[in-house]
Amino acid sequence: MSTVSVFSAKIGGWTVPVRLLGLAQPLCKAEIDMPTPSILDAVLARIDSDLPKALDRLIDLLRIPSISTDPAYKADCARAADWLVRDLGELGFAASARPTPGHPMVVAHGGTGSGTHLLFYGHYDVQPVDPLALWTRDPFDPAIEETPKGQVLRGRGTSDDKGQLMTFIEACRAWKSVHGTLPGKLTIFLEGEEESGSPSLIPFLKANATELSADVALICDTGMFEGRTPAVTTMLRGLLGEELTIHAANRDLHSGMYGGLAQNPIHILTRILSRLHDAEGHVTVPGFYDGVGELSDDLRSQWQNLSFDHARFLGDVGLSVPAGEQDRTPLEKLWSRPTAEVNGIWGGYTGDGFKTVLPAEAHAKVSFRLVGDQDPHALRQAFRAWVEAQLPADCTVEWKGHGNSPASVMQITHPAFAAARQALTEEWGIAAAFVGAGGSIPVAGYFKTYLGMDAILMGFAKDDDQIHSPNEKYDITSFHKGIRSWARVLEKLA
Amino acid sequence: MSTVSVFSAKIGGWTVPVRLLGLAQPLCKAEIDMPTPSILDAVLARIDSDLPKALDRLIDLLRIPSISTDPAYKADCARAADWLVRDLGELGFAASARPTPGHPMVVAHGGTGSGTHLLFYGHYDVQPVDPLALWTRDPFDPAIEETPKGQVLRGRGTSDDKGQLMTFIEACRAWKSVHGTLPGKLTIFLEGEEESGSPSLIPFLKANATELSADVALICDTGMFEGRTPAVTTMLRGLLGEELTIHAANRDLHSGMYGGLAQNPIHILTRILSRLHDAEGHVTVPGFYDGVGELSDDLRSQWQNLSFDHARFLGDVGLSVPAGEQDRTPLEKLWSRPTAEVNGIWGGYTGDGFKTVLPAEAHAKVSFRLVGDQDPHALRQAFRAWVEAQLPADCTVEWKGHGNSPASVMQITHPAFAAARQALTEEWGIAAAFVGAGGSIPVAGYFKTYLGMDAILMGFAKDDDQIHSPNEKYDITSFHKGIRSWARVLEKLA
Repeated sequence: MSTVSVFSAKIGGWTVPVRLLGLAQPLCKAEIDMPTPSILDAVLARIDSDLPKALDRLIDLLRIPSISTDPAYKADCARAADWLVRDLGELGFAASARPTPGHPMVVAHGGTGSGTHLLFYGHYDVQPVDPLALWTRDPFDPAIEETPKGQVLRGRGTSDDKGQLMTFIEACRAWKSVHGTLPGKLTIFLEGEEESGSPSLIPFLKANATELSADVALICDTGMFEGRTPAVTTMLRGLLGEELTIHAANRDLHSGMYGGLAQNPIHILTRILSRLHDAEGHVTVPGFYDGVGELSDDLRSQWQNLSFDHARFLGDVGLSVPAGEQDRTPLEKLWSRPTAEVNGIWGGYTGDGFKTVLPAEAHAKVSFRLVGDQDPHALRQAFRAWVEAQLPADCTVEWKGHGNSPASVMQITHPAFAAARQALTEEWGIAAAFVGAGGSIPVAGYFKTYLGMDAILMGFAKDDDQIHSPNEKYDITSFHKGIRSWARVLEKLA
Repeated sequence: MSTVSVFSAKIGGWTVPVRLLGLAQPLCKAEIDMPTPSILDAVLARIDSDLPKALDRLIDLLRIPSISTDPAYKADCARAADWLVRDLGELGFAASARPTPGHPMVVAHGGTGSGTHLLFYGHYDVQPVDPLALWTRDPFDPAIEETPKGQVLRGRGTSDDKGQLMTFIEACRAWKSVHGTLPGKLTIFLEGEEESGSPSLIPFLKANATELSADVALICDTGMFEGRTPAVTTMLRGLLGEELTIHAANRDLHSGMYGGLAQNPIHILTRILSRLHDAEGHVTVPGFYDGVGELSDDLRSQWQNLSFDHARFLGDVGLSVPAGEQDRTPLEKLWSRPTAEVNGIWGGYTGDGFKTVLPAEAHAKVSFRLVGDQDPHALRQAFRAWVEAQLPADCTVEWKGHGNSPASVMQITHPAFAAARQALTEEWGIAAAFVGAGGSIPVAGYFKTYLGMDAILMGFAKDDDQIHSPNEKYDITSFHKGIRSWARVLEKLA
């Protein structure tokens, strides 16, 4: 089903389509500093009343199977871009689908004003849907479903990222329909290759740097902290990948004939890798912690207030005891501390049964999550030197460098950050927090590198949205309150 | 070509077909205690003059593609067994091909006398020939070839093991033709499944223990030490195989989301495996060295006289520095010292590119070469306990036991050992040695376990025979002097 009938009720000052939301949780007003009602209230009311149509529009977009990694869906990706160009054009944006060697970029400019010039980023491409048999419905025939946790929209791309990017466009639409103009100077930039490695992104940013530069970027591709607390992600760890091969003999040897006398490169590899961490979980590569700073008191306090339930977080995956640096809190370990992890190891015979081989070589893939000002290039050199210094006679090492990107740490002194946090707090009735992210969101780093902009990463996804998996969903609450959140942000910044 | 014309010359007291051997190295007589000529000389002369026909017979047997591991060659295996039954029957043996669930065993009894009752073992099956494209000739159309190192017979099975087993049969044939009787009481036992794991061997030995028991076994499936020194192998290392899987989280995790807080089982595995050896190369598993004895002065002296060129041995495979126990000689490390080796390791992402996964599990295959009285069952328990004691919280280990066999250490006090060594010394003009073997030859252990017999392992293969590989060959010298060596052994023991 693609349309819903709703009735709405006044709750806490705004109109909510009750059947859709199924919500009844009273809002905690203690921390909410309510805004002046005049400008915003009409927009929020419009968002509430327009929700069924907004869902219809989203469902229309979701029906386009814009799987960017599969060439069979190339025309669908173009179709999704065209859909967005047409929709943004109807809102008054000067919008176009810009060709790339891969899928088009949607770029739209609109609005005027002396306020903050914002660039909004989202992506219209989606992940493949395999294994299809595990879906409870056609992933490209989305519909609203009732679940024990409330109403959800189920389908590929609902949460990642079409549902999220439409929260911003719907906020603009409501604003336009109430005020007749867009809320300030806006650029909308929507990518169609995010799920397939963004091969065209950097060249496109470089080629269009002047056009795309704004005061600050808004990126809607993240989630609520623990599915509950609205959050702006202000720190993203960087990443350095290294692949090493230890070579010993010039061919595989029989352990009966050579065992005890010949060097076994698996032994050398395990010995070196076992020294990556000391007994307290600190990384031992010399200079590794250069550029790693300490949290500000403000952030430390915000993170403390999140009351992160690490026991539940680990318990969900069958673990109970925090690993890693013994002198750090769980959230520090995940967000603001660097790591060294062996992501893959292989050597010798790995099939069924047994083969008493002394292999000629052994391999590992090692990655480092970087924070603060850690320099990935310097670390690559330090790691290689550290490994090479441990090689015994007769062993050599061969290197293959994989990706390297520094951490992204946003300059949260820009007033847009405080405004976003305030807007989220007001909308959700829960104090919003500046949080970190353990992984990388490369586009945030690229915006900083190529456009000189910090990015406000805020989104409304939940941990259980099953993005990249069968049965992806997006809570109707996320969609509805997401639109309302952006309206509040725009009102503060326009 | 399958026949050769030779002329022979008298060298050092026996007749040698010069063109076949291409030999001219003068024999060192210093260590040779020549036997009484009367009984043996006629047999040796007969061997020399019959060599072309012996080669024809061997080539006839080699033409049968008795590849035991491939069901397509089942009939050929039976044909090879029948060929041997017929040939042994012609020599006066009561020979038969005895059915098994796999390929037949050839059992033949012959001769009489109060001397040592000998059981001779060899195998008539051969390895597959892939990759066929690397062969310089049809592997089952063998022929004599001239090479810079002398004449060789090239074809599958020439060295492993048809050429070797025929050295014994040809020695019996020469003896019979000269003396009219076989040289003493003999049992010949030829297997057809050695190259495919000997699945029928133990049941057959158990079912026919009385019939197959003799005073001592002769096994012809080994080689010359460094391709030069005739040798009787008196120690074979045993083997214990263990496969372990370290489990951590209940599913693969993303290192961006969990890295720094969640346990990485690859780290745990590398840490444990890196502790298998101390800095001096000793194995650290408690009790590991229980049952490991020291060499006798006699063996130590024999091994020293072998002047093992470990630099060349390692140099051939691109290595230079002996690994393993720092306080042991190279030959001790290979033959009389136990080892612990990781033969395979795998975990996480091992494909092209990079995946920042924290895997749910990591695996290794570890084997131990055993010597002396080391008990594989006790060691299995000790190793498992040692690993389990090192597991951190949240990690478990899963075990899969692979093969276990104790070391075989022959009771070289049986006079047959001294006789064999003496016979080899006389034939080759180089002091023969009791040597060890780093690998296992399971049948030697089975003869001890199920038939209560020690085994004299002597053979004439060279390191460059390329057994199990394309272009397998057997030196004509090995075949000819192998036959003569057995004649000398039989003369001493019959």
